[in-house]
Amino acid sequence: MLRIGNGYDVHKLVEGRKLVLGGIEIPHTKGVLGHSDGDVLIHAIMDAMLGALALGDIGQHFPDTDMKYKNIDSSILLTKVTNLIKSKGYSIVNLDSIIVLQKPKVKPYIEDMRAKIASILQVEIDRVSVKATTEEKLGFTGDESGVKSYCVVLLEKM
Amino acid sequence: MLRIGNGYDVHKLVEGRKLVLGGIEIPHTKGVLGHSDGDVLIHAIMDAMLGALALGDIGQHFPDTDMKYKNIDSSILLTKVTNLIKSKGYSIVNLDSIIVLQKPKVKPYIEDMRAKIASILQVEIDRVSVKATTEEKLGFTGDESGVKSYCVVLLEKM
Amino acid sequence: MLRIGNGYDVHKLVEGRKLVLGGIEIPHTKGVLGHSDGDVLIHAIMDAMLGALALGDIGQHFPDTDMKYKNIDSSILLTKVTNLIKSKGYSIVNLDSIIVLQKPKVKPYIEDMRAKIASILQVEIDRVSVKATTEEKLGFTGDESGVKSYCVVLLEKM
Repeated sequence: MLRIGNGYDVHKLVEGRKLVLGGIEIPHTKGVLGHSDGDVLIHAIMDAMLGALALGDIGQHFPDTDMKYKNIDSSILLTKVTNLIKSKGYSIVNLDSIIVLQKPKVKPYIEDMRAKIASILQVEIDRVSVKATTEEKLGFTGDESGVKSYCVVLLEKM
Repeated sequence: MLRIGNGYDVHKLVEGRKLVLGGIEIPHTKGVLGHSDGDVLIHAIMDAMLGALALGDIGQHFPDTDMKYKNIDSSILLTKVTNLIKSKGYSIVNLDSIIVLQKPKVKPYIEDMRAKIASILQVEIDRVSVKATTEEKLGFTGDESGVKSYCVVLLEKM
Repeated sequence: MLRIGNGYDVHKLVEGRKLVLGGIEIPHTKGVLGHSDGDVLIHAIMDAMLGALALGDIGQHFPDTDMKYKNIDSSILLTKVTNLIKSKGYSIVNLDSIIVLQKPKVKPYIEDMRAKIASILQVEIDRVSVKATTEEKLGFTGDESGVKSYCVVLLEKM
């Protein structure tokens, strides 16, 4: 039994915050504003996993009004979502994600992100794809005021 | 035989129109500008269903130059697309959709949307996922000038 | 064995360049700025195919710092990606793509795009969907400064 899911997340980039993507901290002059650590990539992945099973979204599971999730490492939340998916009898066939960011170049960090995400999901790394692109200086990623991420996932009942 | 589809739709938010999402009217100071009722969620779902079978897009099936579709309830159009998919021998495995909107909060209406959509599609509600997010006050959803919606769908030949 | 992928690409529209989408040249006052021919549709399709197998993205395979790819016809790149997918034992179940562009209307060119893409991918045309929409004059496609494209793909190991 297959299920498809998709996720989309956006965060503002501001000075004085860390830039964390896919669980990896990336050196940069700006970082992500968010109630949690603002890891848009992991947020898009979680939303895709939850959506595939019609279990709501991360806003419902981890409300930004709950102090418990203040500045929380999104890896911890991804572990929770992974356990939830498993408890429903599903495993990840594969996921394919996209980081949309003007600067800095994230290519040097992609393999580390994939390894980190695969390790949390407990799947082989070749089931986890992280790609990166820019919007060619257009829109809110183009003027460096924000970062966004898309993810699609295919789940299968074991 | 499986088929994957994706849909994306955008509408402007203006004063003096109703805000209808997923077939549910949501009380708000602004509503959606469109030739039909401007229900971006149902439009994205229809585009995903049509695209999965390479049957064109809603602009081709329901042209906005045709007065027949002026202010039409998008639920009626979704019924037509559902019948078309069925006539090709396909059924919905599941769909996962996202509403991107700064205001108002749509969470209180999500379950009603899912029930409405599942009823039109004639599938169990756990095959229909509707999620919501904002672009954190960035872009044209962020400044409340528009609303957008994404949807992915998996179809299977019965 | 199934794999899901998604692609997203953006290019700026400027005067004095050709507008090429899905391998088809479309008469217009503006064209696409890019290191290659800037065919966002084919770029999104390639990214989806590569992502489905976690083989990186087009930026890694065809770097825009490599003069070899200067003004290159993206159809040539799509042939390379098609061969790569096949060499891994995978074929395309179907793909569904979206062109987001304010002007001009691309509807008259959609069937030619589908035929061209299907021919490069060496699949039946009913496995290739190309849809088109606008962002209703909002955002960077709305003010005609850019064009974007989304694609999802389902691959299967033969």
